[in-house]
Amino acid sequence: MNETTPPPLFQNFDVKTDSRHVAPRLRALRAQLGEAGLDGFLIPRSDAHRGESVPPGEARLAYVTGFTGSAGLALVTTKQATLFVDGRYVLQAPAETDTKLVRVIEAAPGAAAAKVAAVVPKDAVIGYDPWLHTPAEIAEIEAKLKPGARLVPTHNLVDRIWPDRPGAPVTPIEFLGHNRAGQAAADKLADLRATLAGAGADATVLTLPESICWLFNMRGRDVPNTPFVLGFAIVPRTGRPRLFVDKAKINAQLRHGLEAVAAVADVRTMPAALHRLGAAGKRVMLDPATCPVAVYDAIRGGGDASIVDRPDPVLLPKARKNAVEIGGMREAHRLDAVAMAKFLHWFDGEAPNGRLTEIDIATALEGFRREEHSLVDLSFDTIAGAGPNGAIVHYRVNRATNRGLAAGELMLVDSGGQYLTGTTDVTRTLSTGKVTAEHKDRFTRVLRGMMAISMLRFPKGTSGAMIDIMARQFLWQDGITYHHGTGHGVGHYLSVHEGPAGISPRYATPLEPGMIVSNEPGYYKEGAYGIRTENLILVVESAIGDGGFLEFETLTLVPIDRRLIDETMLTQPERDWLNAYHARIRAEIGPRLTGAVRDWLEQATRPI
Amino acid sequence: MNETTPPPLFQNFDVKTDSRHVAPRLRALRAQLGEAGLDGFLIPRSDAHRGESVPPGEARLAYVTGFTGSAGLALVTTKQATLFVDGRYVLQAPAETDTKLVRVIEAAPGAAAAKVAAVVPKDAVIGYDPWLHTPAEIAEIEAKLKPGARLVPTHNLVDRIWPDRPGAPVTPIEFLGHNRAGQAAADKLADLRATLAGAGADATVLTLPESICWLFNMRGRDVPNTPFVLGFAIVPRTGRPRLFVDKAKINAQLRHGLEAVAAVADVRTMPAALHRLGAAGKRVMLDPATCPVAVYDAIRGGGDASIVDRPDPVLLPKARKNAVEIGGMREAHRLDAVAMAKFLHWFDGEAPNGRLTEIDIATALEGFRREEHSLVDLSFDTIAGAGPNGAIVHYRVNRATNRGLAAGELMLVDSGGQYLTGTTDVTRTLSTGKVTAEHKDRFTRVLRGMMAISMLRFPKGTSGAMIDIMARQFLWQDGITYHHGTGHGVGHYLSVHEGPAGISPRYATPLEPGMIVSNEPGYYKEGAYGIRTENLILVVESAIGDGGFLEFETLTLVPIDRRLIDETMLTQPERDWLNAYHARIRAEIGPRLTGAVRDWLEQATRPI
Repeated sequence: MNETTPPPLFQNFDVKTDSRHVAPRLRALRAQLGEAGLDGFLIPRSDAHRGESVPPGEARLAYVTGFTGSAGLALVTTKQATLFVDGRYVLQAPAETDTKLVRVIEAAPGAAAAKVAAVVPKDAVIGYDPWLHTPAEIAEIEAKLKPGARLVPTHNLVDRIWPDRPGAPVTPIEFLGHNRAGQAAADKLADLRATLAGAGADATVLTLPESICWLFNMRGRDVPNTPFVLGFAIVPRTGRPRLFVDKAKINAQLRHGLEAVAAVADVRTMPAALHRLGAAGKRVMLDPATCPVAVYDAIRGGGDASIVDRPDPVLLPKARKNAVEIGGMREAHRLDAVAMAKFLHWFDGEAPNGRLTEIDIATALEGFRREEHSLVDLSFDTIAGAGPNGAIVHYRVNRATNRGLAAGELMLVDSGGQYLTGTTDVTRTLSTGKVTAEHKDRFTRVLRGMMAISMLRFPKGTSGAMIDIMARQFLWQDGITYHHGTGHGVGHYLSVHEGPAGISPRYATPLEPGMIVSNEPGYYKEGAYGIRTENLILVVESAIGDGGFLEFETLTLVPIDRRLIDETMLTQPERDWLNAYHARIRAEIGPRLTGAVRDWLEQATRPI
Repeated sequence: MNETTPPPLFQNFDVKTDSRHVAPRLRALRAQLGEAGLDGFLIPRSDAHRGESVPPGEARLAYVTGFTGSAGLALVTTKQATLFVDGRYVLQAPAETDTKLVRVIEAAPGAAAAKVAAVVPKDAVIGYDPWLHTPAEIAEIEAKLKPGARLVPTHNLVDRIWPDRPGAPVTPIEFLGHNRAGQAAADKLADLRATLAGAGADATVLTLPESICWLFNMRGRDVPNTPFVLGFAIVPRTGRPRLFVDKAKINAQLRHGLEAVAAVADVRTMPAALHRLGAAGKRVMLDPATCPVAVYDAIRGGGDASIVDRPDPVLLPKARKNAVEIGGMREAHRLDAVAMAKFLHWFDGEAPNGRLTEIDIATALEGFRREEHSLVDLSFDTIAGAGPNGAIVHYRVNRATNRGLAAGELMLVDSGGQYLTGTTDVTRTLSTGKVTAEHKDRFTRVLRGMMAISMLRFPKGTSGAMIDIMARQFLWQDGITYHHGTGHGVGHYLSVHEGPAGISPRYATPLEPGMIVSNEPGYYKEGAYGIRTENLILVVESAIGDGGFLEFETLTLVPIDRRLIDETMLTQPERDWLNAYHARIRAEIGPRLTGAVRDWLEQATRPI
């Protein structure tokens, strides 16, 4: 399957940027502003496909500012440069950029527009690349600008100052057969056409790679961590869909399958195709939260198309996994559990010596995962936070931050794999010897929250927003909490973060059978330690409640560190759940292990 | 204090309507349609003040259709009459109206507009009274009408066919001094003016009696159950507020206090005053969810006023009770607890004989409440549901439905009082002898949910929507639920249902210190029994969590029937909570009781 040779290690611990580049690149960009007659230019982190990972040639924000986080926006004007990042990156951004030249401002996702607008001077004309922003983003900023100031679409000024900018990735497309996808692309397209008909739309334009990959049963290697094929698609209510991807990604053998359901076209022909939709006066369904301004403009430029603003119509059917996808996800979790058992056995032997570093730990874990040949990639760079680094929620170790793990410190490891059958994401917090009463109290409160979600039964129609508190209640009782959601959706051999359902106050979408979400409460004591326990859970029909109720099946099969549990804090149902969970791991994963690792698993899954 | 002589009983068990009136009244109304050149007329339950109780002369929906529920809407056209009621009233409405002449359609509050529009014929012109509808209501219906159909404001056609229609109520206004209100009206007005300034508004028009009564520290007796003064107010950002109430409600002694803060004007001068706001081009803050169309039209008719649509600005400060209001509410609950203890003692003696009826029970309970001289009214008609009637969530007994309570049946009693110091609302489910294992299981699941809310600690910013599940979790675990919210806001000697906070998925308003909400999970088995346990709880600062957390103080001090609890289902914290609650009742209420009632309380509050 692996036509490309994998690198020796997927995760890279190099310090990725050098702040000395910032000064000359800002200078070059300001020369471009002058040529274009602009007062400033917006540089977002995202590409046209809104992914968390972007190919190297789309990493414009990092190229100009040095900041490598997964979200953010810079505004470079003739006089100043400002970098807007959310709370996760308030430490990382100043460390990566040149703070003498770039001002870093914290802006929560919902509050960014006002903060961006506040630094735009009166009457300033600010350029933006219409492929990199949604209409909603642009409108929100425009609504808050000072009199006379405005935003105008333009060519990308960063591309003009980036001589060796890498080209778009061309990786081979992998086609998923029925044994892996569980539903033919033709069937998925029929469902999508019915949705279009129901909304009175003539066509939709898909710009999210997770939607396109799922719809056409294909995967690729265009970005790290997520098996994306980058491209676009136009799906008409009647007639053949048009898939805009580089034909070099498709070999002869795959072309047959793909061309049975779609016409493959060069991405450079897409603007003309959008223009034709407009010229034909079509009603086009677009997702204002994800579709680039350029797509809207191309359609509107064609004439009097009308736009039907709706969330991407593929997101919901994709989130409801079918039986084959669920089977694949279950198997991916068994494979991942084998790797995690090997890792935890190794860690228990090594950590008490006090000589491991975070990079050692992430490297060893990747090594155990790579022993499984169907591993395609990590599903994200492993978060390996030793002691106080565990309290930095989105911490990614590199050679500059790498920290030794002292005996007695807690170790937080959040990791996952992309297997040919599915995607995993698991967090365990590990003891390394001496454990304090405070460690146990906090760990047990987090665990009880995780178990409360795991054990929950709920009526159909219940959203993740409604159940989030179940995971927080035991921390709240002691006047503490965690400042992230309890869970995010996870795709089938796709994005490790997917909508539209999840567990946090912002997820109003009802949970439905087949959806897979993470369940990951935590507790973080700044400067001291971090605790998080994360399983992936699948929404299933409940046998209780006459067909009106749902519950969760736990997919992750990795032992929870019993040495961190204060048993006196557990209720009998919680104790029963934990023992049954460990017994299930022993039964399902034990036979896949041998020798010392199997012995370790027996010990680690003993009842309490 | 009681200038009016109270009736021998506040609650009236008469069958209130006679369906034989429906035919002649529909005939008369259709004659009016002909005269007005209309094809139909809308008859809502509510008056211009959107209250749950309306004075007799505003009970137009009952006058025409016979339906006496607290919410609903009729559309009478030349050809047909349709009555739209929500799920609570699907049994009561057909029983009260003449179903040969009036079609009853169930319409959930959010879905009513579409169902109303569906019965309006093409090209029909339907009249409505602009004082009885909000712009939002009218716009929602209009958006769904068939081509050519429209809604037009008109005089009220029902008033033309109601020869002996009672006039507007004129009851004396009671002025609350600082010892009861805790904040001078002048101070409240200063806060309101600051809110207007913050929103860039020049004035606001208040149409909700709870807002006006709270703002001006006055109460009245214009409607049953809630001490409302019906009226309107215009509050400008600068200058004197104008209060539109019948001057006959104000005696010389009260005039002084009221006229210190507002000019009192006749309600007939209000349209001209609104017109002047428009003519002066003012920016007027109006609440589109509660303000009548007539107010909007009068302001717009004056010229180019601009309307600032905002929720009624008094709702939030009113909901955050001050220390004096909280003290009054605590005392009202002690007074009510004395009456409830007398009632429960009496009930325990009488019920096992199997000779009590629902009316006996409601009558006895009111008698015990009336022993307290500061009782002004019941806060709502007592819900006394014997056996299967307990499963009808909004059941109100009358002489036709009155049911005997057999020994061994469960009795659900939901009741409350309006005391001079505050408002109460309490539900207890009572055993009458033999208790089944199913009764105990269901009662204990409901109780555990009630206790989970009572014991909860939560960070500031948490809404009632987020915590609602805590009350449902134990029922959900067995595949059952209840189809009502967990809690509603309660006013201080005002509405027993008030916004903007509560506990249910529809309450996104954060809970704040001083807010009082009910906590009332339930379980209803149709045709068999109903269970609900309800306390009022006050939001207070928590000593845990460094000032960032809140918790609840329970106000209601009424024993919970220990004979219905399955002790084996309780955790130790739940057992501790229940025993501490009962000990507190014994300590706080015991000294106010004597003799057999005190002995009963000692028994009823023993630890389990």
